[in-house]
Amino acid sequence: MTYCVAARLDAGLVFLSDSRTNAGVDQISVFRKMTVFELPGERVMVLMTSGNLAVSQAVLNVLTRQREEGADTLWNAPDMFAATRLVGAAVREVYRSEAAALHEQGVDFNVSMIFGGQIGTEQCRLFQVYSAGNFIEAGQECPYFQIGEAKYGKPILDRVLQPDTSLDEAAKCALISMDSTLRSNISVGVPLDLLVYSANSMRVTHFASIDEHNEYFRMIRGTWGERLRQVFAEIPDPSWTNPDAPGSLVPPSRVHQPLRMEPVNTAHAPYVTPQVLAEEPGKDQPN
Amino acid sequence: MTYCVAARLDAGLVFLSDSRTNAGVDQISVFRKMTVFELPGERVMVLMTSGNLAVSQAVLNVLTRQREEGADTLWNAPDMFAATRLVGAAVREVYRSEAAALHEQGVDFNVSMIFGGQIGTEQCRLFQVYSAGNFIEAGQECPYFQIGEAKYGKPILDRVLQPDTSLDEAAKCALISMDSTLRSNISVGVPLDLLVYSANSMRVTHFASIDEHNEYFRMIRGTWGERLRQVFAEIPDPSWTNPDAPGSLVPPSRVHQPLRMEPVNTAHAPYVTPQVLAEEPGKDQPN
Repeated sequence: MTYCVAARLDAGLVFLSDSRTNAGVDQISVFRKMTVFELPGERVMVLMTSGNLAVSQAVLNVLTRQREEGADTLWNAPDMFAATRLVGAAVREVYRSEAAALHEQGVDFNVSMIFGGQIGTEQCRLFQVYSAGNFIEAGQECPYFQIGEAKYGKPILDRVLQPDTSLDEAAKCALISMDSTLRSNISVGVPLDLLVYSANSMRVTHFASIDEHNEYFRMIRGTWGERLRQVFAEIPDPSWTNPDAPGSLVPPSRVHQPLRMEPVNTAHAPYVTPQVLAEEPGKDQPN
Repeated sequence: MTYCVAARLDAGLVFLSDSRTNAGVDQISVFRKMTVFELPGERVMVLMTSGNLAVSQAVLNVLTRQREEGADTLWNAPDMFAATRLVGAAVREVYRSEAAALHEQGVDFNVSMIFGGQIGTEQCRLFQVYSAGNFIEAGQECPYFQIGEAKYGKPILDRVLQPDTSLDEAAKCALISMDSTLRSNISVGVPLDLLVYSANSMRVTHFASIDEHNEYFRMIRGTWGERLRQVFAEIPDPSWTNPDAPGSLVPPSRVHQPLRMEPVNTAHAPYVTPQVLAEEPGKDQPN
C-alpha cells in the first residue's frame, strides 16, 4: 500500500509520500511515489500516486512521453485545471489499454492520485484524481487530500490543519500523520519524500528524503508519542464511584443499564426477542 | 458502520461501542451493539457486533432462543472458549440459513464480533469472532480488538494500551480512540455504551451510556483536542534553512533531490523512461 498526504495552505503546498509497495506481504519494495514537474520561474507541479504500481507508472509514462509539436502537455498547460485534465486523460488512456487485460486476471484497475502546484500568475491549486480520470479540488474548508492508507493519519489532520497553518507546521503535521500510519500499518514504509512549496516561488525550494536515520523525523517520532502519553496521563480518569465529581460518567440522577440477554429457562426471565429491523431488500442494508 | 473496541487487561476488561447504523447515507438509525449476558456471581459475558445488522440480530436470536433441556448455551458453557465456540456456531447457523438469499441480492454475509468475559474461576478472556465463525483470542502482546471503522482510532491504542494499563485508563483510552473515530467518520455516532468489568467481580459493576451531553466525554473531547494542538505547537517546526540546527530535515552533508520528469522537447532534457517493474502476473500486484 501507500500513504500520501498533501495540503493547500495560504502560504503554499505541502506534499508527503511514503515509498513502500507490496504485493501481498512477501514482495515488498521501495518505489518513490512523488514526481516533480518543474520549469523554474514558470511552473511547479507535483504528482503523487497510489494504487496498482504498474498502472501508476503507465500513467506517468503517458504524461512524459514524446509528443508531436504543439500537443497539450504538462509543460504548456495554461493553468492547473488544464494540467489536471491532462492527468485525468492519461489515467483514461491507460484504462483503455490496460483495464480489460487486468480484469481478465482478476486485478482491479486501481489508481488514485494527488496533483498540485502553481502555474504562472494563478494561485496554488491542489487536486485529487480518481481512477475514472475525474477529479476534485481542495478548498478552504477541507485543505488537504490523502490517498492510500488514509484513515490512521486522518484525525491529526482534522484537528490541526487550517488554511492559515504555516508551511512548516503543515509539514510537521503531515509527518505526525505519517508516523501514526507507519506505526499502525506495516504496508507503509520509509523513506519518505517531503516537498514544501512556498507560494509564488515558482521553483522547488524545500525537499527532503527522510529515512529512519533522519534526525528531525526521529525527534517527531519520539517526542510525539511520549508527549501524547503524557497528555493522556494528565487527563482525569473517569469517575465511577463519585457521581457528583466533575467529569462524572454517570450523572447521579440516572442509572444506566446495558442491553441484556437473560437465560430463557428460568422462571423470572421471559424470552427476550431481539429487535427486528424492518428492512428494504437489496444492497442498502445497515451496517 | 460501527466502531467497537475492547481490551483485556490484567485488571479486567473494557468494552466500548457506538450505536450508529446506516444503510447508505440516508437511512441512519440508532441500534445498540453491545449485549450483556450475566449470571451474577457466576459469569459475565459481553458481545459486541458489527456488520450487517440483520445478520447480527439473527446471531443474537440463535444465542438466546429457547433450547431443549441440557443443550449447550452461553448460560452453561464451562469456560469462555466453549462459550465463544457457541457464538461461532451461531454465526455459522445464520450463514447456512441466510447467506444464499443475501448473495442472490448482492449482499455480503458480513458480520464481525468481539466477545469477552469471565466464567467461574477462569481468568478474563477476550475473543474476536469472524463471519466464518472462527475466532482468535487476545494475548499479552496485543491486548485489544477492534471491529468496524477501526483505523482512525488505532494509533492511540497502539501507543497507550499495555496489559498493566488500569481499567480507568483503558476506558479513557477507548473513549479517546472513539472520539478520533467520531470526528473523522460520519458513519459512527453516539450514544456510546461503555462497560468496564473488574476481574473476578463476576458481575457488571461499571456501565455508562454516553451521549453528547455526558460531562466526562465532553471533557475528553474538548481537552484531548486542545492539548493535542498544544503539544503539536510545542514540537519544533522542521529546520530547512539551518542544516546544522538540531532536528534538521536535511543534513549538511547531503543534498536531497526529488524524482523529476523533465520536458522531452527541450535540447538539454532527454526523454526519461519511468522505471518498469518486472511483475508476476495475477492478483498479487504491488500497491
